[in-house]
Amino acid sequence: MPEIKIGLLGYGTVGSAVHRLLTESREAIERVTGQPVTVAVALVRDPLRRPDAPAGLLQTDFARLRDDPEIQVVAEVMGGIEPTRGYVLDLIRSGKSVVSANKQLLARHGEELFGEAERHGVQLRFEASVCAAIPVVKVLRESMIVTNVHRIDGIVNGTTNFILSRMIEAGASYDEALAEAQGLGYAEADPTEDVTGADAAAKIAILGGIAFHTRMRLEEVEHTGIDTLDLADVQHAAELGYRVKLIASARMSDGRVTARVHPCLLGQDHPLASVGGAFNAVMLQGRSIREVILEGPGAGGEETATAVIGDLLAVIGTQGTGFLQHDGYYRALERFPSDQLISPSYLRVAVDDTPGVLAQVAQHLAHEGVSVAQVVQRGNGEGVHIVILTHAAPEGAVRRAAAAVAEHPFSRSAPVVLPVLERAG
Amino acid sequence: MPEIKIGLLGYGTVGSAVHRLLTESREAIERVTGQPVTVAVALVRDPLRRPDAPAGLLQTDFARLRDDPEIQVVAEVMGGIEPTRGYVLDLIRSGKSVVSANKQLLARHGEELFGEAERHGVQLRFEASVCAAIPVVKVLRESMIVTNVHRIDGIVNGTTNFILSRMIEAGASYDEALAEAQGLGYAEADPTEDVTGADAAAKIAILGGIAFHTRMRLEEVEHTGIDTLDLADVQHAAELGYRVKLIASARMSDGRVTARVHPCLLGQDHPLASVGGAFNAVMLQGRSIREVILEGPGAGGEETATAVIGDLLAVIGTQGTGFLQHDGYYRALERFPSDQLISPSYLRVAVDDTPGVLAQVAQHLAHEGVSVAQVVQRGNGEGVHIVILTHAAPEGAVRRAAAAVAEHPFSRSAPVVLPVLERAG
Repeated sequence: MPEIKIGLLGYGTVGSAVHRLLTESREAIERVTGQPVTVAVALVRDPLRRPDAPAGLLQTDFARLRDDPEIQVVAEVMGGIEPTRGYVLDLIRSGKSVVSANKQLLARHGEELFGEAERHGVQLRFEASVCAAIPVVKVLRESMIVTNVHRIDGIVNGTTNFILSRMIEAGASYDEALAEAQGLGYAEADPTEDVTGADAAAKIAILGGIAFHTRMRLEEVEHTGIDTLDLADVQHAAELGYRVKLIASARMSDGRVTARVHPCLLGQDHPLASVGGAFNAVMLQGRSIREVILEGPGAGGEETATAVIGDLLAVIGTQGTGFLQHDGYYRALERFPSDQLISPSYLRVAVDDTPGVLAQVAQHLAHEGVSVAQVVQRGNGEGVHIVILTHAAPEGAVRRAAAAVAEHPFSRSAPVVLPVLERAG
Repeated sequence: MPEIKIGLLGYGTVGSAVHRLLTESREAIERVTGQPVTVAVALVRDPLRRPDAPAGLLQTDFARLRDDPEIQVVAEVMGGIEPTRGYVLDLIRSGKSVVSANKQLLARHGEELFGEAERHGVQLRFEASVCAAIPVVKVLRESMIVTNVHRIDGIVNGTTNFILSRMIEAGASYDEALAEAQGLGYAEADPTEDVTGADAAAKIAILGGIAFHTRMRLEEVEHTGIDTLDLADVQHAAELGYRVKLIASARMSDGRVTARVHPCLLGQDHPLASVGGAFNAVMLQGRSIREVILEGPGAGGEETATAVIGDLLAVIGTQGTGFLQHDGYYRALERFPSDQLISPSYLRVAVDDTPGVLAQVAQHLAHEGVSVAQVVQRGNGEGVHIVILTHAAPEGAVRRAAAAVAEHPFSRSAPVVLPVLERAG
């Protein structure tokens, strides 16, 4: 039986897990592909740092991998932008399909990489770049083609979900919860990518692009993270029966699309409200599927390796069929600004505790055509917090009203506007 | 560009939805497959019953479909066992791949059908047979090959989940909730297949077979439905903080497997506990994925058609590669009896309200080595209900203790034993 040889770019946590799982599951893989699959070469900078690797596996010369005609598929698990990008381009130009776990590389250089893959008739798959073992890319690309998925809402960053869970459950401040996440290894020493929403933005750009068959660039995804989130708003939301989650959203409406990352309020019965700790979940909405939710661990070496291997086997299983080669997969679509999105909003203003303030806030909302569903006023020592849940309205209108409120001398800090994520729509 | 022609066996709710979605999504499909896909022939008994179908599409002569060399893939959406089985076998022998939405056909005649497909080098796919638009078959077969999935727990029957949700939320009796489900069209006039767990048993046989790479037969799946479930037990469970759900389970342990369907108690934080109404959800547990949950609508014409089309496109995309041709996919594995499964149990006995009864019940449990975690005693008019939550123990031991209790003259009805579904294990 001919053996399928694959290569690895990198042999760190994910790379070595790919190797280990492929070896351990040799029989299962043969049952599926009909052929044994082995790792022939793994490119590393310093083989001495991996003394546990089998002799001869680790190579430092990229040409050994690129020029091996027996290797038709390579998993890129080294991360980073350069020299990774150059390696991947070289491999594609040598006629090799590539599987990548590198969301930043794909979100930043996807257009170039996919274009090159198309020209050379090879595949570039990237399941592992989003939500690790949750096969959301595969499901969108292969199962949901005729479903008219018009909306994706996801919790796609485990670090921020853990931090928010701690703020909700333990009443911890953002700083306390972040320190706890760092202590447990859920957050990096420099958590910027996660807490600012940049990581989630790259993921939703990838998912939105697949779902709507249009390229979405990282730069076009507005993102607000949780680093500026006030515990007071998490608590006000809880009193009103909502949980705050960092949601990555992509929408298509009348042939126009938009994507963004934003803290949102979710009702307790929203399927994403109960996603706790470092888990990820993605909700797909489309006419012919109503809503389908995929949930699981969004990170981890073996979890990511599982997705890499799923892609490796998919490349092997579809090689030469022309299926999903991206030839014409992406089309041009217009964008729409996210302030046209319609939903209820949470608005909180910190104001002086003087008569008539609530009336003026309400007037600004009325002026923008926004009607009020609930109002709660809470003293917080010096001034008061006025918390308002609006009925569904364009978010831009609520933001304009909030900006007008901020102009008043009674305003003590910038108003907070958070969208309420509704289930249907 | 060459056109891919497909055939339909049947043109009812699902068949016409397949046709409609393929037509509406023509462009999206071309973006993925690179070729247009059209429905060339649909076999029906009486074309006059579908006056809305395009002229020439509906045919009554099976040979027209079987002998058309241009049709390489057929979707079986007619249901039933005969003549469906004969048609599918004939199509396979004519070298056509088949996609089926027919769980009973697959659970009863899978071995014969898959064997024939293997001999003729064609594919037999069946995503639509389990949980409609939730792509659990694809995920298990293609994404989870190296994950060592050792456990599947699913809510795979929407009818019973709706009925249970109504019993929990509205305190409706089983009969009231069933009548409501029938009124809303969620339950058939004859609900036997659903409420006895037979439908769920066919589905878990299919899922367990794919996950563990071994054929599981419908006959070997023990199933207890919800038709004998007492509202009192649903309420006792709720008081203890649990929800009762009809769970279809498959487990692999030390290379042995088992599958069954059973009402279970789920803690409120179990991901399946919040799956409400007619929705389905499947939780996969494996070493390298921890737990992955897929949730969505488990029935419906368009939802099922979505899965059928996903399979049609997958056949087109992998044709000729030998991938997933079932050659050696299934292996022989030993079975283990489900009473060896270890979990906490819920035990409820209806007894005379006389001194010493609780002590005797406890003694029978102790005799079987089962330790008690919680006891609640509730008067119910004449006698009392003793409700016990045990610590983890083999279910067989709890059942033996319950049988011993039933022998006593103080026992008023057969004891109820329900497993508690734990998240890990």
